Amino acid sequence: MSTATTDIDALAASLRAAIGAERVISDRQELRTYECDGLAQYKVVPALVALPEDATQCAAVVRACVAAGAPFVARGSGTGLSGGALPHADGVLIVTSRMRDIIEVSPADERAVVQPGVINLAVSRAATPHGYYYAPDPSSQQICSIGGNVAENSGGAHCLKYGFTTNHVTGLEVVTPDGDLVRLGGRAPDPPGYDLLGAFVGSEGTLGIATEVTVRLVRLPESVRTLLAAFAGTDAAGAATSAIIAAGVVPAAVEMMDALAIEAAEAAVHCGYPPGAGAVLIVELDGPEPEVAAQFAEVERLCRDNGATEIRIAADDAERALFWKGRKSAFAAVGRISPDYIVQDGVIPRTALPEVLRRIAELSAERGIRVANVFHAGDGNLHPLVLFDAAVDGETERAEEVSGAILELCVAAGGSITGEHGVGMDKAKHMPRMFTDDDLDTMQLVRCAFDPRSLANPGKVFPTPRLCGEAPGRRRGAHPAQEAGLAEVF
Amino acid sequence: MSTATTDIDALAASLRAAIGAERVISDRQELRTYECDGLAQYKVVPALVALPEDATQCAAVVRACVAAGAPFVARGSGTGLSGGALPHADGVLIVTSRMRDIIEVSPADERAVVQPGVINLAVSRAATPHGYYYAPDPSSQQICSIGGNVAENSGGAHCLKYGFTTNHVTGLEVVTPDGDLVRLGGRAPDPPGYDLLGAFVGSEGTLGIATEVTVRLVRLPESVRTLLAAFAGTDAAGAATSAIIAAGVVPAAVEMMDALAIEAAEAAVHCGYPPGAGAVLIVELDGPEPEVAAQFAEVERLCRDNGATEIRIAADDAERALFWKGRKSAFAAVGRISPDYIVQDGVIPRTALPEVLRRIAELSAERGIRVANVFHAGDGNLHPLVLFDAAVDGETERAEEVSGAILELCVAAGGSITGEHGVGMDKAKHMPRMFTDDDLDTMQLVRCAFDPRSLANPGKVFPTPRLCGEAPGRRRGAHPAQEAGLAEVF
Repeated sequence: MSTATTDIDALAASLRAAIGAERVISDRQELRTYECDGLAQYKVVPALVALPEDATQCAAVVRACVAAGAPFVARGSGTGLSGGALPHADGVLIVTSRMRDIIEVSPADERAVVQPGVINLAVSRAATPHGYYYAPDPSSQQICSIGGNVAENSGGAHCLKYGFTTNHVTGLEVVTPDGDLVRLGGRAPDPPGYDLLGAFVGSEGTLGIATEVTVRLVRLPESVRTLLAAFAGTDAAGAATSAIIAAGVVPAAVEMMDALAIEAAEAAVHCGYPPGAGAVLIVELDGPEPEVAAQFAEVERLCRDNGATEIRIAADDAERALFWKGRKSAFAAVGRISPDYIVQDGVIPRTALPEVLRRIAELSAERGIRVANVFHAGDGNLHPLVLFDAAVDGETERAEEVSGAILELCVAAGGSITGEHGVGMDKAKHMPRMFTDDDLDTMQLVRCAFDPRSLANPGKVFPTPRLCGEAPGRRRGAHPAQEAGLAEVF
Repeated sequence: MSTATTDIDALAASLRAAIGAERVISDRQELRTYECDGLAQYKVVPALVALPEDATQCAAVVRACVAAGAPFVARGSGTGLSGGALPHADGVLIVTSRMRDIIEVSPADERAVVQPGVINLAVSRAATPHGYYYAPDPSSQQICSIGGNVAENSGGAHCLKYGFTTNHVTGLEVVTPDGDLVRLGGRAPDPPGYDLLGAFVGSEGTLGIATEVTVRLVRLPESVRTLLAAFAGTDAAGAATSAIIAAGVVPAAVEMMDALAIEAAEAAVHCGYPPGAGAVLIVELDGPEPEVAAQFAEVERLCRDNGATEIRIAADDAERALFWKGRKSAFAAVGRISPDYIVQDGVIPRTALPEVLRRIAELSAERGIRVANVFHAGDGNLHPLVLFDAAVDGETERAEEVSGAILELCVAAGGSITGEHGVGMDKAKHMPRMFTDDDLDTMQLVRCAFDPRSLANPGKVFPTPRLCGEAPGRRRGAHPAQEAGLAEVF
């Protein structure tokens, strides 16, 4: 476990000897650059920063941490929104931004192999000349790293059709919390043994650090068509979404923005969305031309049948880009209409969309806190933006209450406390809303198996760290059979 | 660990007290019924059989085993082909065939919830009236159980397009090897925390027993079209397969049979495949009608361009069923042309198909052992059927050598020792061909976390069981940093 007794100067010397002094930062001013990730409300200055350039150096850093008993936190581009890469004050922040090689692009077996610091969009750029791309597309794809995507199992607008990061990573090279380099998965589908690859993707830095990532490439679609439909409100837009999915169409993306989000996007990027709309849907279809053509006509009809007041069809790539510009810049745009805001992230079953949106509106009215909604409607992944002014007495607290209450709504509707931003530092406290003690304990058995010293990103994901020395199954004092009233059996 | 000192009579009494005498089998004659699964070359009579009817009973059985220190093995329908459900002579075989309730079919959120003993095809039958089906379709789908599919991460002909069992299970209730009931995953996509669901699917009974399975339902396609193309040999058929995939078409299935497999199928089920064909491909497309129509024409053209000597298009469901009858009965049909045979299961990258098939033919000629090939060509999942006559001196050994050499070919080509049948008892010895000691040790850390007593299906999957008491990472005597020549760092 981390300790205030770690000798930071000695650890810095170990790191310099292992990977070279030019890859270790110990200057306090420089260290401050790394004090937070995309969730800027939490700030911790790390004791040291290491910038390894390959897997061997990364493993050497972890081994030095193990030897010193110092915690370590991995960080890619630092765009995460749950504080998953928040540094540890007594530990080493291992930054992967110098591990940016695209090792291989192999169209013949539809794979790319990259280092973890490679930017998401760079994979698609390297694959496009071969007729392929990398499908998962977080809004931050121009800057976020593949390693961070792996840690958080990142989603994006097109994950409705194509799945999350976990559906696109087939192999990893990983530094375990012991400092071993191991391979999980590979290039072929469905390797034998436990699917530790699957467990690692989304483990938020608690099971080790990915040093090489093998991803699936997806063939560029023959045809892409995008429409933007305006509705009187989110109820009608939600009904249109349900009708599209119920018709058996699987769009590449179905995105919704409500009136407040539209207002913000207009103020920021002048995307020209229909004025006065209570909600807009962006629906994108891709695939073989005959399929897209037939289904696009159906989507247009279903939007009209469900009360669309205006439908625009992107005439060319420039117009499509404009539709998306409003959506992809919406989070930042909210800064134009509110001094402060919380980006919330939850999931609900798509069928619960109208009810949950109504309840969010009620919460907003009750507490006098505006909430803008921008989200992946197709898979029920909400991103409510809770607006407030920290300068107004009590508003921060009320905004946090509303934000927390929204998560309660998601869980009560059969959903989840996070869709794609991860648990990280921010949502660890919410985990017991979804999981029983037994469920969380079972997860922590795996954490302890990988990281018995609790040095890999401690304090994240789990609300109550498990003491790894406890015997599994014997952690509640009594034998489980006795607790279950089965003592007479034995 | 298992032990000859387990008092079987006392354990039987515990089980009877826990779940009722009518659900416990201890009669030697009755126990023999369970001595093997689909891989009949290994036979072990279990000490006891338990037939729980719900999750609580299943957990009670596991707790009784834990209390007695007795190993336990779960079994569904017993159709597995890797000996994964081979009983333990001193342990309890936990048979799920009385857990056959379809708990819920929910078209609104495209999920079904079933008990583990439910037959694969029964899920589709329950979903069809709602316009849905369950996609993974092992050849044994009329008899294999969903619980067994989860344990082995079963595939099937249509997994090329739709993915394996792991892509279709969103939630599980599981009895851990401690006897706790926990939930992994749920109904929503992408829950937070470790994806233990993914690790559990395909863990072959070593991490616990699934007692409730939530699966994705897939909408019945608007259109299905199937063709059967004959070729001079597997080279031409393989080239056609590659051409189809390279054209960006993702068929629902691309299945290949070579001359010997065709001969066997004809002898058994008179499916009327083109006489004299050196290989046949069955290509099935499904999806929206306009897509299927456009792509089907292209598939037909690509088959002709690559030397198809005859192409038949299924005129109706009856003819489609006939095409598939030959393919799906091929394994059993081989019994018509050979007294004994081994069903092998390996994966290769699709691009290596022609070369590996040629090498298998050379092996066959060199050793005088016939090999029939029936396989999922689209995703490179081979099923060579190695034919022999156990009555002929030395043939069994030569057949086993050829079968093992085929796996070596698969691994050397960048593939895997199993595609969908699992490692089980049969292939544990081959695991070191694919994984380093560190890789296997990392997997076993997870096994030890779940099952520190090694009671859950011991002897399967791993060639060398790990002693769970060993400190992780410290198992090779030296500190890893020293081994890596990094001792000077510390």
